[in-house]
Amino acid sequence: MKSFPRKLISVIGAGSPDAQARQWAQEVGGLVARRGFGLVCGGLGGVMEAACRGCAEAGGLTVGILPGVDAAQANPWVQVVIPTGLGQARNVLVVMAGCGAIAVAGGPGTLSEIGHAIKMGRPVVGLGTWALPGLAEADTPEEAVELLFDRLHC
Amino acid sequence: MKSFPRKLISVIGAGSPDAQARQWAQEVGGLVARRGFGLVCGGLGGVMEAACRGCAEAGGLTVGILPGVDAAQANPWVQVVIPTGLGQARNVLVVMAGCGAIAVAGGPGTLSEIGHAIKMGRPVVGLGTWALPGLAEADTPEEAVELLFDRLHC
Amino acid sequence: MKSFPRKLISVIGAGSPDAQARQWAQEVGGLVARRGFGLVCGGLGGVMEAACRGCAEAGGLTVGILPGVDAAQANPWVQVVIPTGLGQARNVLVVMAGCGAIAVAGGPGTLSEIGHAIKMGRPVVGLGTWALPGLAEADTPEEAVELLFDRLHC
Amino acid sequence: MKSFPRKLISVIGAGSPDAQARQWAQEVGGLVARRGFGLVCGGLGGVMEAACRGCAEAGGLTVGILPGVDAAQANPWVQVVIPTGLGQARNVLVVMAGCGAIAVAGGPGTLSEIGHAIKMGRPVVGLGTWALPGLAEADTPEEAVELLFDRLHC
Repeated sequence: MKSFPRKLISVIGAGSPDAQARQWAQEVGGLVARRGFGLVCGGLGGVMEAACRGCAEAGGLTVGILPGVDAAQANPWVQVVIPTGLGQARNVLVVMAGCGAIAVAGGPGTLSEIGHAIKMGRPVVGLGTWALPGLAEADTPEEAVELLFDRLHC
Repeated sequence: MKSFPRKLISVIGAGSPDAQARQWAQEVGGLVARRGFGLVCGGLGGVMEAACRGCAEAGGLTVGILPGVDAAQANPWVQVVIPTGLGQARNVLVVMAGCGAIAVAGGPGTLSEIGHAIKMGRPVVGLGTWALPGLAEADTPEEAVELLFDRLHC
Repeated sequence: MKSFPRKLISVIGAGSPDAQARQWAQEVGGLVARRGFGLVCGGLGGVMEAACRGCAEAGGLTVGILPGVDAAQANPWVQVVIPTGLGQARNVLVVMAGCGAIAVAGGPGTLSEIGHAIKMGRPVVGLGTWALPGLAEADTPEEAVELLFDRLHC
Repeated sequence: MKSFPRKLISVIGAGSPDAQARQWAQEVGGLVARRGFGLVCGGLGGVMEAACRGCAEAGGLTVGILPGVDAAQANPWVQVVIPTGLGQARNVLVVMAGCGAIAVAGGPGTLSEIGHAIKMGRPVVGLGTWALPGLAEADTPEEAVELLFDRLHC
């Protein structure tokens, strides 16, 4: 009956992705929803927006943890907006709120999130993102989600 | 159709309240849900738990923003858990995530949240909490919710 | 020989104080320095700037913990600038970095800092600031510093 | 006359380094001090402690920004202790407080700091740390400091 708290997967990645990364992120979001999980991200555009859209369209819960103080900065697919005013420090919260993370493309902000996630013991899977020792890499959204769920412990 | 982002009310207050404050908090939670709003709080016990229970039992969304890193610290009525590891700094996020705040009883942590909320321009209503110049005071949960919604601008 | 870590007193208060509060803050800063302590504050103008000036002119160390990311926002009397980008959440750090706090005038931001300080167990003395149960009140800078040092345990 | 604010260099790296990394960190600290800069770090042991020691012994200012709330956690070479209670989010502050960063060895926490620093536009030089595209790598402490100061813009 009682089916909460809601388990979330963090999706992190580029704010200005190319078309493929955007498509991947949207598919990841849908696959996460179909596994019965919600999605948490940084709440802005690019990979974050695409992943939220994929998740929300598949009936999943979407949470966006914003760097700024203005909830209106969230992309239109975020259902639960957490503005923080913490700037980059909000990256820590994005990965902490999920059971594990999938990184799609991304620059130095994504790199910081991968570092934080590993430090917290969260499993992380990369999809066209930074190549790092110990980071599981996938070639497709399906593989990314499968690799991540194999590693989840929550 | 699209009905998000979900608007939230912050409920702040005592972690170890007396029976009346606990009852008030639960009623506030229920009234917030019946206004079509969700509830955000610090995610722990006492007023936070009672308010979440009232809200969830009335069909509302509940969000808990925890001071620690462990999602399992959330009370059982929190649907969306945001662990932060930020300690007291998470108080800022609790009031920022809501359109306005209701304070039920509470000590210095609640005082800090009232200060942050006023600083952010969020309307705040008190129910058996700190008496402060400019803080609207209510005598009942109904009055608290009414006073708050009269002041909301989101 | 080794004389660190340096003990600090937090001075919190109005960003736009009247002439008296500004004068008080400057005197508090000087008195803190003459006690052999440094001063930590929010790093901006008003009470923060006056207190830093008083402390620095008396040979004391001044630390400013800024809400923004730009070190250039610090007032000219801050010797050690800690930009944070945390917004209001930096208030927590300002009171945590001191052994105790003196509040000079101030609005809701100062109120939040008083709440955080009490919650942390830091002694707090007010000088023309919020009247709160349990907050020691002084009438002069000398009395404020004396009351605070009577209560310090670090 | 007036010689503040004090310019700082961030030193980040392993909490449990091998002997070489520890030696490198101490030399980096000394070289930073001899350039007239202070040092900011995470305030704990390992690379942080060695770098603080090197800097302090050469007469430089040392600042430690701690993840916890207890100032006593700082290593004995930290002169200005900033406890935060922010957990991993304090990593953001460590790199924000410096004009640039030198990373000595280090694991995922250091990786997060490198990501944050690059995101903020701070120059970063690595010494036996993560190999990353765009991260300048040095082979000795002297080279690390030289490469960093060539890139500084503050």
